[in-house]
Amino acid sequence: MKGLPGFRDFYPEPIPTADSWSLDLRRHIFDTWRGTAERYGFREYDGPPIEELELYTKKSGDEIVDQLYNFTDKGDRNVSLRPEMTPTLARMAAAHTRNYKKPIKWFSIPQLFRYERQQKGRLREHFQFNADIIGEAHWAADAELIALLIDTLRDLKLTNNDFVVRLSSRRAWQDFFENGGGQEKDTCDFYQIVDKLDREDPAVSGDKLAKLGFSIGQVNDFIESGQPTDELAAIIGNIEARGLGDFIKIDYRIIRGLAYYTGPVYEAFDKRGKFRAIVGGGRYDHLIKLVSGGKTDLPALGFGMGDVVLAEVLKDRGLVPALGQTLNAFVQIADESLRNASLGLVQQLRQAGLATEYPLLKAKPDKQLKRALDSKAKWLVTLDTPTQARVKNLETRGEITIPLVDVAAALQD
Amino acid sequence: MKGLPGFRDFYPEPIPTADSWSLDLRRHIFDTWRGTAERYGFREYDGPPIEELELYTKKSGDEIVDQLYNFTDKGDRNVSLRPEMTPTLARMAAAHTRNYKKPIKWFSIPQLFRYERQQKGRLREHFQFNADIIGEAHWAADAELIALLIDTLRDLKLTNNDFVVRLSSRRAWQDFFENGGGQEKDTCDFYQIVDKLDREDPAVSGDKLAKLGFSIGQVNDFIESGQPTDELAAIIGNIEARGLGDFIKIDYRIIRGLAYYTGPVYEAFDKRGKFRAIVGGGRYDHLIKLVSGGKTDLPALGFGMGDVVLAEVLKDRGLVPALGQTLNAFVQIADESLRNASLGLVQQLRQAGLATEYPLLKAKPDKQLKRALDSKAKWLVTLDTPTQARVKNLETRGEITIPLVDVAAALQD
Repeated sequence: MKGLPGFRDFYPEPIPTADSWSLDLRRHIFDTWRGTAERYGFREYDGPPIEELELYTKKSGDEIVDQLYNFTDKGDRNVSLRPEMTPTLARMAAAHTRNYKKPIKWFSIPQLFRYERQQKGRLREHFQFNADIIGEAHWAADAELIALLIDTLRDLKLTNNDFVVRLSSRRAWQDFFENGGGQEKDTCDFYQIVDKLDREDPAVSGDKLAKLGFSIGQVNDFIESGQPTDELAAIIGNIEARGLGDFIKIDYRIIRGLAYYTGPVYEAFDKRGKFRAIVGGGRYDHLIKLVSGGKTDLPALGFGMGDVVLAEVLKDRGLVPALGQTLNAFVQIADESLRNASLGLVQQLRQAGLATEYPLLKAKPDKQLKRALDSKAKWLVTLDTPTQARVKNLETRGEITIPLVDVAAALQD
Repeated sequence: MKGLPGFRDFYPEPIPTADSWSLDLRRHIFDTWRGTAERYGFREYDGPPIEELELYTKKSGDEIVDQLYNFTDKGDRNVSLRPEMTPTLARMAAAHTRNYKKPIKWFSIPQLFRYERQQKGRLREHFQFNADIIGEAHWAADAELIALLIDTLRDLKLTNNDFVVRLSSRRAWQDFFENGGGQEKDTCDFYQIVDKLDREDPAVSGDKLAKLGFSIGQVNDFIESGQPTDELAAIIGNIEARGLGDFIKIDYRIIRGLAYYTGPVYEAFDKRGKFRAIVGGGRYDHLIKLVSGGKTDLPALGFGMGDVVLAEVLKDRGLVPALGQTLNAFVQIADESLRNASLGLVQQLRQAGLATEYPLLKAKPDKQLKRALDSKAKWLVTLDTPTQARVKNLETRGEITIPLVDVAAALQD
């Protein structure tokens, strides 16, 4: 039997085929995400992988259902595997907002799902690092979140030669739209057209814009002016004060597809232009009110960073670290009459926190040594008597003989 | 809006209500699971949370569908959220068994799902620590896995006053059944009756046994004899050699519900008798062959340990450690003209690996101090000039003034 199309199996290294997904690489990415978030004072949360369908349609309209991994459960509920984390976060925050001091800084690493028909070979799930700040309307929160985004990618060893954050503003676009005489009812359509400018035939975009009372020249002039609003200038100043100014620039081509953004929006791009956006985020000040049915009204902002594009970028740049097992010790059993004493030694080492292996069954010494080397064990330990051990450093090849009771301490060095 | 019934939200500490689920406690449990498994040389893997329904019915029969969280996907496939990890493991191992040296020692921490109707208030998901060994038929592998199970619970600070592993054997029960004249076709029914002995009216069990040619007295005598088979005696000897003998005993009442077990089986029980089994596992030598359609035939064994019962046990015993945020440093901004310089300091500290917070906006010094204390920051750092910092140890209350460039190094101590 096979796994379902679009779902990944994650194998430990060494992965079986070149295109297998590596659990070790996933761990490297997740550990980095967690580490950076916690250094920034963000706290981890998680929600269910399934929610009521309405949680998503409420926010994004019924059209979104085409892209959802939705179904009817055994209790006849319309439900969906989560396509994004923000609605769950908004639901959780709205339910218990009073319990936490504002601003709330939270992160999560959910697996997200989608089901588009006729998308052969495309993945139906990915993992996403989500970081959000809730309860702070000031741009200082946007700057803090963008700094986290930049440092997360830097912790994965990406540099300002590899990526840049393109910063834009829904508010700037709204001003442009209103000043140009746009009608409020057309706002979302206008954003959609701008979002597609890079990918669509300019003639098509031009026709669509004309219907809303704009010319493509007008729009391109605004993009090329790149004139930062006061808010965007302040955000960039804040990022510069942290010494991260090389990682960000104004780019009004960014507008973000989702309807719910209200303020600064941004994406992080691969500077070599080979991959899709690595991260996207922005401010969504009205979403919690919407999801809570008006009960809770808190400004909020967040970003999402997926594991699939990120893994591709890291591979492309040679930034995948050495992965695979690294044992501290391998206990060789050369004399089977010492097996029980050796098991006691194995237990002693493991209890001391050392990753330790041994042969489950009788095996030739050269086979045991090979296994020790394959699993990158630093130490090879062999009992000569029930109370005396030979300890060999497999890197330096140095060997000493010491009492059994001293082995764990000797291996801590 | 609310989450779906039976699904948990995990909040960061301090959790909003006494019965909220804590992400921090979950992390404590997951980190311990990972830590112990890796000390034992086990390697992590993961599979998809959804599989074809057939993967589960193949192994357990169609009756299992009543308990599954199954549905029809948009491509008209019969699929199910995974109710257990073993079939996925068998599928993954069968696909790439040649790539890995035997025995394979793997672990995973999947979220598992079930959907039983009329089970109000019951959870529909939990997380489970799964550890398995594939490719070793010898009982030495069973002993290694049981030792891991015991040490995992010990790493969570449970002692031999808290739990015991009850060891039994499908093979011993099969011999008893065959020697007593049982018919092969009745084997599974017989196991089911024995599995329910503790929970069912003895008269009912007795009637059922009589139909298979056994008396309840016969069965109880076998259970009470507690005579270990050679295999079980060897496993216990191995566990004793590790100094873990106090954590295991023979108990033939254990037989395990699932059809696929073939050899030693065991459960770990709360010694105070307040909770359901904490862990269950055993040998399933034919499952990989079944799942792979006969292509791959490898002996295998494994156990599963759920997070829900475990969390209850830890709470009951007062073994939940102090949870919640612990910052290394809080950078106080007393003088707003030093905000940009303070942001540079924050960046310096975070880059040095220190979890660091600061006030996003202007705030009174006493409010800032309160936030530093609430987040258990060890150090309070305040710039007096753009190049000079006051560093206060919030535990000892000692304070020194040092150059800005030296702060990160001073806080490493």
